[in-house]
Amino acid sequence: MKKMDYQNVKGTQDYLPEDEVIRRQVRRTLEDVFILYGCSPLETPILNYRELLASKYGGGSEILEEMYTLSDRGERELALRYDLTIPFAKAVAMNPKLKKPFKRYEIGKVFRDGPIKTGRLREFTQCDVDIAGVDSQIAEAELMMMALDAFEKLNLRVEIQYNNRKILAGILNVFEVPADQINKVILILDKLEKVGRDAVLKELLDNGLTTKTIKQVEQFLVEADLRYIAEYAEDNNQLKEGLHELNELQGYLAYLGVDAQCVFNPFLARGLEIYTGTIYEIFLADRSISSSIGSGGRYDQAIGGFIGSGENISTVGISFGLDVIFTAIKQLLNEMTPTSKVQYYIVPLGKKKEAMLIAKALRDKGFPVELEMSGKKVGKALEKANKEQIPYVIIVGEDEVKGNKMKIKDMVTGKEKTEAFSFS
Amino acid sequence: MKKMDYQNVKGTQDYLPEDEVIRRQVRRTLEDVFILYGCSPLETPILNYRELLASKYGGGSEILEEMYTLSDRGERELALRYDLTIPFAKAVAMNPKLKKPFKRYEIGKVFRDGPIKTGRLREFTQCDVDIAGVDSQIAEAELMMMALDAFEKLNLRVEIQYNNRKILAGILNVFEVPADQINKVILILDKLEKVGRDAVLKELLDNGLTTKTIKQVEQFLVEADLRYIAEYAEDNNQLKEGLHELNELQGYLAYLGVDAQCVFNPFLARGLEIYTGTIYEIFLADRSISSSIGSGGRYDQAIGGFIGSGENISTVGISFGLDVIFTAIKQLLNEMTPTSKVQYYIVPLGKKKEAMLIAKALRDKGFPVELEMSGKKVGKALEKANKEQIPYVIIVGEDEVKGNKMKIKDMVTGKEKTEAFSFS
Repeated sequence: MKKMDYQNVKGTQDYLPEDEVIRRQVRRTLEDVFILYGCSPLETPILNYRELLASKYGGGSEILEEMYTLSDRGERELALRYDLTIPFAKAVAMNPKLKKPFKRYEIGKVFRDGPIKTGRLREFTQCDVDIAGVDSQIAEAELMMMALDAFEKLNLRVEIQYNNRKILAGILNVFEVPADQINKVILILDKLEKVGRDAVLKELLDNGLTTKTIKQVEQFLVEADLRYIAEYAEDNNQLKEGLHELNELQGYLAYLGVDAQCVFNPFLARGLEIYTGTIYEIFLADRSISSSIGSGGRYDQAIGGFIGSGENISTVGISFGLDVIFTAIKQLLNEMTPTSKVQYYIVPLGKKKEAMLIAKALRDKGFPVELEMSGKKVGKALEKANKEQIPYVIIVGEDEVKGNKMKIKDMVTGKEKTEAFSFS
Repeated sequence: MKKMDYQNVKGTQDYLPEDEVIRRQVRRTLEDVFILYGCSPLETPILNYRELLASKYGGGSEILEEMYTLSDRGERELALRYDLTIPFAKAVAMNPKLKKPFKRYEIGKVFRDGPIKTGRLREFTQCDVDIAGVDSQIAEAELMMMALDAFEKLNLRVEIQYNNRKILAGILNVFEVPADQINKVILILDKLEKVGRDAVLKELLDNGLTTKTIKQVEQFLVEADLRYIAEYAEDNNQLKEGLHELNELQGYLAYLGVDAQCVFNPFLARGLEIYTGTIYEIFLADRSISSSIGSGGRYDQAIGGFIGSGENISTVGISFGLDVIFTAIKQLLNEMTPTSKVQYYIVPLGKKKEAMLIAKALRDKGFPVELEMSGKKVGKALEKANKEQIPYVIIVGEDEVKGNKMKIKDMVTGKEKTEAFSFS
């Protein structure tokens, strides 16, 4: 057999135990926080009808190009899900009896056949929370508090940037950006932090905006604060509504004392996805990773779109990227961090059955135990225990079994203590 | 949009919170037990090269017909994994530096485009533990102990049936079943419990076995004990080896006091998969579900096959079916089991910010809290709390905030108590 046969597919990877132990810990921490916030688990399938995922309430044309498609033996046209939002919207649409507000979390694999950048795989894990059925900005505030809580428990210092789609779209409307150009201009402004003000203005000029509009945008980029934005609100209802929502949200954040960690960014855009109101992105406070490590926002039209009723079902969501969070945590960890959670390593010297009995007794008490099964001699076994930082080693030989005792070697101090243990 | 658009694909399903809460609990219990037995997590991709999964060390022709295949944009020929064993063997083959014995667990989705029976989906979750690098039957005994431990923690009474491939193949060899018919005959014998002795004998006759052979098989079916089998061991090395392994395994099981739960079944076959020695299947003790809820065995050739070295790497595995275990647990659960783990339900009467502050304080203490965000009035809120069996409700109104206190209503006793809480 050729070597190629057992390579991984481009854009996929194995997570070996050293890494996967950390990733499992991140998953559990997130899940525990989600439960703390009253979220219920939902599990949706990876396989979906292609037509569903390609719906106009889906991820937009960019994502659709990256969709993995396939057919089953019944010649159904299928696709692998590329996010957890569409499957959530589908489940809500399929189950009208679900009590609202419906607050669910899901942690699962998603697939995108796109270009591979650093930390960007084609098969990756998303951790999502969405709330359907809440109009008030209290839902956004709750999810932002939840994110802060989760990252505190993960020992990561973060900053949340937030904005409101209505503000950005509203002010561009006031500046007389043509309606069909607004989304494009929003995407250009979103690049401000990355490319700088001059490059943004040049790109706007290249897109044929009038000099008057560009001048207004330029002043907006310079002033960039709420008081300045508010001046325009009287002329535009969308802007007024956006500012009203922002005001409500900021009230919660200030009262809860998290306004230093949550920063208003009037240029934040979050791509061209389904968002309709508040949006937010979470960054490491030290920016040691430049991309966001979580993000979300309000999308009030998607579920109604799936149901086909056209009604708005207020929905707010947040998504955590397991892989980027793992990368962030890994760069903090000292190389000497124990890779093992095993507490006892039981090494039989000919006494396998008796070694198993000790293992059973310790596991019954809740200790993770490794049983030596490959016939290692004492020297090799102690070497392994040292290397993997297992705190205690118990050698089980003739003497111990005869004397109904066990010798426990403390690998840190090197001391040995003897305890009674009944083998018979 | 038509209704069909948001249906689930045949063979897939959503798990709504009521069910998924239980499934998450099963996953966690299994994972905790795996860790207790010194297993490390491994995560492998769902997307694989088609050629890898179709290898002769893979799942055999039946499974290959059920493989979902697809191509990516780079025109690679891919397939979705149909088990966790091949990806494990691949990861071991790709990482020769992994220390052996290598004891890993993986919990993940697998896909089979096959016929849908009750409880059999096309997309389902497997929970596997495999140990590479142990020759001794101590590995089998360890996995069987682990399974008993896991099911005890899940409150399920189980029986483990075990056999050894070498015994079954060896004795059929002694009975002069032609070498190329042995696998077929093993599969026929495997149906004994389901179809009865007469049907088995008839099928053997239909397959052209000689009268002499059939007579011997018939006697084997009647006697069906170890002493009877042992009589033939002198003439056949394979049988001798199988009995030797069985003897070692039974020594462990008896010493550890689990021989009543672990039963030798000389006709157990486990399909025609890659197993080479000991095999086992786990059943509910009351047989309220007739199919097995876990199974596994020894397969010493697969990893060597992938590496292409042809060497045997001793490997033993066990697989738990999350969905069938979930079904088993669900049929035990009383309908009145609380669907909610939420401890406190905070209901703001106009005082949203203050309600969030109480929620934060309780969550900081570790209590799962649900915050009412949809503007429910007190009556509706209490109704919801009753229905979802949330033990405590806290109403946050003008009086409470002014008086810096919170009123906690115990939903079981109906009593209310007041505690100080500083809002300012």
